[in-house]
Parts: sequence; C-alpha cells; structure tokens
Amino acid sequence: MSTTATASYERLLEILKEEAVLGSIGGLIGWDQETMMPAGGAAHRAKQLSLLARLGHERMTSSEVADLLAACESEMDVTADTEAAANVRNIRHDHDRAVRLPASLVQEHAETASAAQHEWAEARNDNDFKRFLPWLEKTVDICRRKAECYGWAEGGEPWDALAEDYEPGCTAAGVAEVFGPLRDRLRDLIAEIVASGTQPDALLDGLELARNDQMDFCLDVAERIGFDRERGRLDVSTHPFCGGSHCDDVRMTTRFHDAMLTDAVSSTMHESGHAMYEQGLRYEAFGTPCGSSVSLGIHESQSRMWENQVGRSESFWRFATPLLERHFGAAVGGIDARSAFESANRVVPGFIRVEADEATYNMHVMIRFELERAMLTGDLAPADVPEAWNAAYRDYLGLEVPDDRRGCLQDVHWSMGALGYFPTYTLGNLYCAQIFEHACEVMPGLVDGFADGEFSGLLDWLRSNIHVHGRRYSPAQLCERITGRPLSADPLMRYLEGKFRPLYGI
Amino acid sequence: MSTTATASYERLLEILKEEAVLGSIGGLIGWDQETMMPAGGAAHRAKQLSLLARLGHERMTSSEVADLLAACESEMDVTADTEAAANVRNIRHDHDRAVRLPASLVQEHAETASAAQHEWAEARNDNDFKRFLPWLEKTVDICRRKAECYGWAEGGEPWDALAEDYEPGCTAAGVAEVFGPLRDRLRDLIAEIVASGTQPDALLDGLELARNDQMDFCLDVAERIGFDRERGRLDVSTHPFCGGSHCDDVRMTTRFHDAMLTDAVSSTMHESGHAMYEQGLRYEAFGTPCGSSVSLGIHESQSRMWENQVGRSESFWRFATPLLERHFGAAVGGIDARSAFESANRVVPGFIRVEADEATYNMHVMIRFELERAMLTGDLAPADVPEAWNAAYRDYLGLEVPDDRRGCLQDVHWSMGALGYFPTYTLGNLYCAQIFEHACEVMPGLVDGFADGEFSGLLDWLRSNIHVHGRRYSPAQLCERITGRPLSADPLMRYLEGKFRPLYGI
Repeated sequence: MSTTATASYERLLEILKEEAVLGSIGGLIGWDQETMMPAGGAAHRAKQLSLLARLGHERMTSSEVADLLAACESEMDVTADTEAAANVRNIRHDHDRAVRLPASLVQEHAETASAAQHEWAEARNDNDFKRFLPWLEKTVDICRRKAECYGWAEGGEPWDALAEDYEPGCTAAGVAEVFGPLRDRLRDLIAEIVASGTQPDALLDGLELARNDQMDFCLDVAERIGFDRERGRLDVSTHPFCGGSHCDDVRMTTRFHDAMLTDAVSSTMHESGHAMYEQGLRYEAFGTPCGSSVSLGIHESQSRMWENQVGRSESFWRFATPLLERHFGAAVGGIDARSAFESANRVVPGFIRVEADEATYNMHVMIRFELERAMLTGDLAPADVPEAWNAAYRDYLGLEVPDDRRGCLQDVHWSMGALGYFPTYTLGNLYCAQIFEHACEVMPGLVDGFADGEFSGLLDWLRSNIHVHGRRYSPAQLCERITGRPLSADPLMRYLEGKFRPLYGI
Repeated sequence: MSTTATASYERLLEILKEEAVLGSIGGLIGWDQETMMPAGGAAHRAKQLSLLARLGHERMTSSEVADLLAACESEMDVTADTEAAANVRNIRHDHDRAVRLPASLVQEHAETASAAQHEWAEARNDNDFKRFLPWLEKTVDICRRKAECYGWAEGGEPWDALAEDYEPGCTAAGVAEVFGPLRDRLRDLIAEIVASGTQPDALLDGLELARNDQMDFCLDVAERIGFDRERGRLDVSTHPFCGGSHCDDVRMTTRFHDAMLTDAVSSTMHESGHAMYEQGLRYEAFGTPCGSSVSLGIHESQSRMWENQVGRSESFWRFATPLLERHFGAAVGGIDARSAFESANRVVPGFIRVEADEATYNMHVMIRFELERAMLTGDLAPADVPEAWNAAYRDYLGLEVPDDRRGCLQDVHWSMGALGYFPTYTLGNLYCAQIFEHACEVMPGLVDGFADGEFSGLLDWLRSNIHVHGRRYSPAQLCERITGRPLSADPLMRYLEGKFRPLYGI
C-alpha cells in the first residue's frame, strides 16, 4: 500500500474541488443575502442556494466518488499520519454522511433555510414570533428527518446526528455532562459578582458615536490585529457573521449602534478571529479536508480568543485607547486604558447572547442547547419555545424576557436549520481558554505585547499550530497536540476567576 | 400540431430555468467582482465563473435538450404567434449556437475574461497597455476561434458570428452601411457646432460636491424616474454597468468624480434605463426567452432614452434643479433649469465614450467597431491598437489622445471578450430616437410632464410595449410593431439637429 497520492486520489480531489467551488459560490451569495441583497431577491436566492447545494451534493454522493474512495482505501495506507491519508479519512466521513441524505431533502433544507432566514429577520424586526413559527416548525421537522437519515449511536438521540456536522464526535449526553458542572461553577461566580455591589462604569457605551466613524475604527483595529483586507471585507448585517468564498476572499460583518461601541468592537474582534482562521487556511489545499476548518468549536476558539483573551485584556486597551482618540477625538477624551478595560468587562446578566459578557455568555448557550435538544426529541413543541425560553432565562439568569425580539427570535441559527450548532460556542470557549493558557506559557510576555500593538506573535502561532492543519487532526487530537492535555473546563474557570475576582473584589 | 404547450415543452423550460438559475448566480458574482470583491479573490472568481458557464453550457447542449426541442417542433406549431412558439424558436436559435461551441472553449473564454478584466482594471489604473496586451491577444484569439465555430453567412466575416450574441441578425457589412452616412451627417453637425464659437457654461461640472451627497442625489433621481430599490441596488464601480441576478434583484453601478456631477447623473440615468428594462421583465417567465431581454440594441435604446431624451431635456432639469438644491443646498444656489439644461448639453469632442455628449457619442462607437472588425479579420494586430486608436481619434474627432488610459484602455468590453458588442450602442441610439419620437406622438405632453416629475407614463408605455415581451419579437419586429416603420437613422438626426441647432444658434 502506498503512503503517497495515487491517480485515484488525484481524481478524487479534482471532484472535491469542483464541489468546493460550488460551495464557495454558495458562501458568497449567502453573504450577499445578508448584506447586499434587496428584499425582492429573497425568493430567487433560495432557489440559487438550493441548486448549488443540490449540485454539490450530487458530486459528493456520485458513484464515481464512491468508487474512487474505495480505490484510495485499497491503494493507500489511510491510517498513515500524512495529509493524503487524513484527506481520504475525512472524505470517507463526509461521503458516508452525504449518501445517507436524499437529494430532495438537501434541496428542501436549503430552500427552507433561505426563505426562513428572511422570515426570521422580518419577524425579529416586528417582534412577531407567530410569523416565524411555521418556519421553525418546518425547520425542526426537516432536522428530525435529517437526523433519522444520518442515524445515531446506541443510547444517543437525534441531536447527536445533527451536531456531527458542526463538531465531529459530539453528543448531547457528552455535552450535558460538561455543561452541568460548568453551569454550577459559573452560577456561583455570577452570583458572587452580582452580590458584590461593585460595577465599573459603562464608559465606552455612553458615547454617541457616528456609525461611519465606528466602522473606520473597527476596520483599523481588525487590520492591526492581522485581518488582511486584500483578502477580505468587513460589512454590516443584522447578526454579525463570517462567511464568504475561500481563504483569499473572506467576508465578515459587524453591526453598529449609536451608543454601544463595545458591542461593535467585540463583534468585530470576534468575526476577525473567525476571518483570520479562514485566511490562515492554505489556498493550495482549497477544496480538500486539510484546506478546510476542522470544527465550529475550534473555529469559535479563534473568534473568542481575539474577542476576549485579547480584546478584553487591559493590555489591549493600552493599545486601543490612543487609537480611539485618533478616530473619535474629543468624544473619547480622558478615557484611560484601565477604565476602558473595566468598561469592557462589566458583568451584567442580560437578554442578548452576542452582547453577553464572558461570565454570563455560556448560560445563553446552555439554554439554547436544552431547548433545541427538547425540540428534536419532541418534548418541546416549537409553539411553546417562547414560554420555555423565558422560563429558562428566569431560572438561569434571574431575568424576565420582555419580548421575543430580545428572546427566542434574537439568533439566526434555528432559521438556518442549524440545530446542534449552539454548544460549539461553549466548546469554543473551553478550547480557547486551554489553548490560550498554553500560548501564554510558551510565549512569555505575550499579553504585555498587545499594549504595543504586537499581535503577530499570537497570530503566527495560531497559524502554524491550528490554521494550516485544516482537518488533518480532529478537534480532540489538535487540543492534545497543542496543549498536551485533553479538553478540560479548568482553564476556562481559571481564566474567568482570575479576571473577575480582582475586578469585582470578590 | 398543437398551438399550446406540451409535456416536452414544459420539461424543456424546466431545464432552461435551471440553466438560467446558474446564469443568475453568475450575474450576481460578476457584479460582486466589480463592486465588492477584494483583490485576493480574483483568481478564484475566474474559476467560479468558469464552472458556472460550463455547467450552464452543459445543460443547453445536452442531448435531452436536443431531443425535447425536436419533440416540441414536431408537436407544436412553432410558427404561431404565441409565447410558447416564440420560446421554442429562440431556444432552437440558442441551442444551435451553443452546440457549435466546445465546452472547453466556453470555459477558456470565461476564465480568460475574468482574469483579463482584472488585468485590464490594473492596466488602466497604471496607464500600462503592455500589461493588458497579452490578455487582449489571448481574447482576440479566443474570439476568432469562437467565430470559426459559429460560422457566418456567405460574404460575411468573423465579426458577424460574434455580433449575433448581442444583436441577432446584425452583420459588419450591414452596420457599416448604416454607420457610413450617419458618420457623415454627424461630422457635419459637429463641425458646425464647433465652428459656432458658442459654448454653454459647464455650470454643473464646476461644483466640488461630496461623493456621498452625489450618491444620495443619484439614488433619489433613480427612484423618482422609476427604479425600484426593493428589487435592485446602486453601487460604485470603475465602469458603470447594470447586471445582477434577475428582474427582482437588479444591480446597477455608477461612478463619481469630485467635480463632474453630469457624469454621475448621466451614468445613473443610463444604468437606470437598463435596470428598469430588467425590472420590467416578468419573473414568472424567468429563464425563458420571453422572460429575457431581446437584444443589446433594444436594451441600449432604454438606457439612452432615460439618459438623453429624458435626462438631457430642459423639462427634466425643471424637475431636477429643485431636487439639486434639496441635496446640495447653497453649493448649487442660483442654477436654474435653463442653464442646467444647457450645461448638460455641451458638445465637446473628447476622449471618453461614456462621458461623451450626444452629438459626438456615436463617433466613439464607430471607431471601436472598425478596430475590432479589423482585429478579427487579422488586418490589425492587438499590439497596434493604441496607434490605430489614436489615429482614428485624430481623423474622426480632431483629437490627440494623451494616453492609453484615456484611449484604448478606457472600456471594459474587449477585456470581457465582448467583441461585436460596441455597435449595439449606436443601434440603441437609433432605436431610441425612433421609439421616443413615436412615444411623443402617441402621448402628447410627455416631455412637458417630466418637469412635474411625471415619468411613470413613459415607463408604463415602455413596459407594455417592450419590456413584457422579452424575446417574443425580434428587435426589427419590435421596432416595426411599435413605430410602424423599419429602423431608420432619420429620427436620430431629427432629434439631434432639433436640439443642437437652436442651442448653438446654427
């Protein structure tokens, strides 16, 4: 058996690359849908996305791919620690999943998701859950049918089958096992913070700043931390996201409020983290597993690292406060690094996940996980989501949700049919904390360097340790290769307690 | 034989619609390429466009389409004056042309065009014809090979084979026959204007106006004349164009200079004319010939009508001067309708086609036609284009072209491989003048109404007489149906002389 590429392997990659070109077009027009498309384009956009999805699916499930894969597996040592072997293993994984889904269901999902996202955006604007409800019901129904097609392991449940798309190897039971203790430790920390009676001023969010100026500031920051504008764009959308076409054309978005600069900055840092991961993939491996990101959890570890470990550090604000003055002049006069840092780290239990502080953030994720898990088992009807949602916010965060716009309509994911996705946010925080803790050990002075605008050390390290590998290693393998240990909640709790105990004097 | 649709016909349209969805995606990402794409995306964009072109071509040339077409032709009366019959006739025309082109050449053309457009934009920026030359050579070579595949009629030439894509039935000899006398009459008119010694002030172009304000003004004007922003966008690109996806998602562009408002207005009016034609197609006929625009000449008749017959009329400026003041305030104070009208109608032989006045415009087109015709016969080497270009500008317009940026590098068309395209601009002016002259006859007071912002009468009339028909009638048939006469140069000359003789007192 060969440990190098064969003719079957080369042909297999050719087909995969064509599928990936279709996918890269879908990524672009998906971005356009959220940022540029006039309202009249929605119905037809659904057809465009659906056709691309179907054509891609046809390629991945073709008998030619099946035959080539079998040939590769007989010709090559696919257990070897080579890029080619990793590609074949991953293609086998993807092919086996894809053939389990009938093309009609793939198309139905794509069409529904595109239309549902549009309806969700309108429903959210109008605070009208009833408008979104039929689309949520349709989406849950499609997701259950998808899960049935994929199947799940003995003792598992439908959620597992869907989560595999986002975080390979992840199960609802496994997630619940990590989330249980994490929730308890976080609940204690949040309770102590709230009880402390201390609260930094919301200095940065009291300022009325023109959106154009905020955009210029955010672009400046994104470029300085390493986002390459020759190979990407920053635009505005309702819900910030990072998408686009491929590593040399990455489209990220952010959003602005008249007086909520920290939201714009943290959204931009977050999406920049995603975008820099995408830009760190190798174009020469485009369309192959080793040229693709490994999982949403690892993706999120990158976005959260730039948003939080970097962007909410005191050292970052030593760098950013002079920049603030350069962009906003007198409007930000007198804000020093320490008070900006404190202002960016206020812990306030709130309604909106993407605006949540680091201490309460994971509570939002856990609530969504429980609700989507229950919708998939059938224990929760979509019509009852607002009530269940509001009850959970009462229980977990002691909050009365005032309306669905600030409640169950806030996030785009369910409208996209992305059930199984939410927990990757908290997995991302866990990976992030563990990887960043290790980075600080191997690069002493890393955090202090942020004050001088020195971010390339961290980015280069992430590039060579994570980005360039694509899917060569599984998330668990990657974590172990980098940090020498399996994933644990301890680094995240050490990080949060290390930051918030001194800040709140607890 | 049936005069109504058959099962073969329905299936044929289904395939066509899928091809058209691919085309509509290509249109969108082509727009993105010119307006949004970061530089790093260029190489991959070429691959995306090329794949879409290939997949579309595969559908149009499939044996299934051939069989279905033959079935339709035996089952239906395809000579009937019905939409179905017109669809079948047009699909036959397109299919026969498509099967003559090998898929490899289609792909080569798409890839080359995408890369060449990028190189052209850079070459134009840097005034560096040598950078563009290898791409022009490659493009001309591909175009000749395409022409050989298509073939042309006895006594014809390669140019005819290419022009068929843009203006069905058009030949180089036929064009030369119309252009010859038109050129002579125009040359006389221009000479008299230049000799008159009179020249209106360039009032509107002397103003330094912020580009953002110009954009707001142009958007306002576009909407008031009938461009539907719920079904389209206006953005900025190097060379203004109208593209996008389909009638409910039309993307047009314009461009701004700090002090050249009439360029921005006329570009916007022009592209709005194209855009409103597209928006006037019927979405329910999407993907069928009768849901598609009929020819570039007719398309251009719409854009030129809004740009010139409307946008350069004194009546329009009665409407537009109060709007100017609303947008620009004191900066445009004291500009009355008469002087704005005169300012928008200065005849100045110049270098740039898209900035040219109505009297000299067609000279630019004729020069390009002669050069591209000669490149295709082999009488002119691409390397000699700058010299030939500059000689022609000397001959036709008495001008010394100062550099290639303002010379042969100014237009995007050749970089797209669109040889055979340019004459449609002048055909458009001829159709436009004849159709508008007729519109004024059947709708007395039409032009006066512009002063009151009454544009919907004209738009509705164009919608029902031209837009809704798509390709149901050929350009020549359409012209005859609407005006009762075959196309003639007389209405254009009547219009130009009627405007410029009084304006210049000649």
